[in-house]
Amino acid sequence: MPVTARRSPYPAFDLKAFLASRTDAVNRALDDFLPTETTRPATIHKAMRYSLFAGGKRIRPALCLAAAEACGGRDAHAMPLACAVECIHTYSLVHDDLPAMDNDDYRRGKLTNHKVFGEGIAVLAGDALLTSAFEIAAKCKGWSRYSHRTIILEIAAAAGSLQLIAGQVADLEGEGKRISAKELQYIHERKTSALLCCAVRLGGMSANCSSAQLKALTSFGYNVGLAFQVIDDILDVTQTSDKLGKTAGKDTKAQKATYPAIVGLEKSRKIAEQLTHRAFTALKIFKGKAAALEGLAEYLLLRDR
Amino acid sequence: MPVTARRSPYPAFDLKAFLASRTDAVNRALDDFLPTETTRPATIHKAMRYSLFAGGKRIRPALCLAAAEACGGRDAHAMPLACAVECIHTYSLVHDDLPAMDNDDYRRGKLTNHKVFGEGIAVLAGDALLTSAFEIAAKCKGWSRYSHRTIILEIAAAAGSLQLIAGQVADLEGEGKRISAKELQYIHERKTSALLCCAVRLGGMSANCSSAQLKALTSFGYNVGLAFQVIDDILDVTQTSDKLGKTAGKDTKAQKATYPAIVGLEKSRKIAEQLTHRAFTALKIFKGKAAALEGLAEYLLLRDR
Repeated sequence: MPVTARRSPYPAFDLKAFLASRTDAVNRALDDFLPTETTRPATIHKAMRYSLFAGGKRIRPALCLAAAEACGGRDAHAMPLACAVECIHTYSLVHDDLPAMDNDDYRRGKLTNHKVFGEGIAVLAGDALLTSAFEIAAKCKGWSRYSHRTIILEIAAAAGSLQLIAGQVADLEGEGKRISAKELQYIHERKTSALLCCAVRLGGMSANCSSAQLKALTSFGYNVGLAFQVIDDILDVTQTSDKLGKTAGKDTKAQKATYPAIVGLEKSRKIAEQLTHRAFTALKIFKGKAAALEGLAEYLLLRDR
Repeated sequence: MPVTARRSPYPAFDLKAFLASRTDAVNRALDDFLPTETTRPATIHKAMRYSLFAGGKRIRPALCLAAAEACGGRDAHAMPLACAVECIHTYSLVHDDLPAMDNDDYRRGKLTNHKVFGEGIAVLAGDALLTSAFEIAAKCKGWSRYSHRTIILEIAAAAGSLQLIAGQVADLEGEGKRISAKELQYIHERKTSALLCCAVRLGGMSANCSSAQLKALTSFGYNVGLAFQVIDDILDVTQTSDKLGKTAGKDTKAQKATYPAIVGLEKSRKIAEQLTHRAFTALKIFKGKAAALEGLAEYLLLRDR
């Protein structure tokens, strides 16, 4: 099925405008939640903000807000959770870029945190962003169905040693080894899909969604999350460093297992499309109210960086 | 005033038995809360457990449980919070020992985490312990006065960029510089007192304490926390590495500011006694129910490692 067949059935929906307005709102909220650059000790707050405002595309917060909207919720209720997830995403990048991990000098076209602030501060800035995530999340509005307890457990599970961190560990340990497609899926589910799926679920929770809606959002988030990482793998081999804003071909050089390396480029593209298709299917329950989620899924499938 | 004048007025209280039984209970609870060593990916769970069960004295959990008991609370209600604080303490040690930070090879007489598992895993193990802390804390019993939201905000504040991490940053930036006693107090308040005070306050909160009790616990925790760090500074210059289980004289060698270096050894001892005295005074409100807290404060003052 050609990609164009998946175009949103809601032609009126303007994804570009949606992304721009939500990115602005998320940036303002993050700015409000975080201590200012001059708050003592200034170094750590400069370092936290350097990576948090380094031009991230705010995909996870956008998904969180879009999920809330699909369930009839308010952006204001979803915002602390959207920001919390972005803090976790940013902390994981800061630590992942360290010399002891992926040893990356550039991220989104800018020097990585430790190249600017030194390794010690980069470790602490990551720690502080992770801590902030829980602080910001705790400021959300709770519901009896989705209490603060439930929300914190949801985030801790997605970010913890069985999900996000498990993915990083498996990724680190898989370097230079021949691994199976199944093993690669284990890594991708944890390294990328877990937090992305969490962002979508939290959006639903902030809107006090029904359990059927949460189930649909979970399927959507899981599949979009996997597709996102497969596409990342594809872009790593097909795009230039300049376009990516980070070192291209890095995965191949580090002998990291990627979908193109294991199943080939064409099959990888097919897998990404299948996953996106499954994500679309999960949204049927929202009967046209999930235009933003659809738009985002399509955008992620078709992106070139 | 000689140290003996501060002996607990409750001769029946057996601190040794208290510490032994609470340490056992905390170890069992931590074992229950954390994934087993064989849980995939095994490396990260081995690394988390390696540092968590490396012979820590469980001072913070003991203070948390003792504070709960002083307020008439139950150990079972305080336990998740006691364990959460210990996870945060352990994560901060794992990251603090990294080559980019204090570069320590030994801790409590054992190789540090990164010496055993490598730097990448040590960073991730610290991250996972910090994440676990919030997960475990969220499992506590909440009260209307001390909701899960309040508890999470309390922990995030103590562990965050204005307290624990601020202390680490100031410590890192102060190396090799001449700093004032006031500046040193800023570091100690954040690096040590904040989390210790948080442990005591959480104990009170788990017992649904009154606001007067919480105020008393805050004063106790703050002063004991500062005293604890002053004594740590003293022990670093007066004890052997063998006794400390870590490299003695490390602070002097790293040109770190310490109380003995700034105000001299005798004045440092006097400050520790004064702080402990203030901590004792704060406990008056508990009218004899705070024997465990008193015993712990005295133990911390008189310890030799």
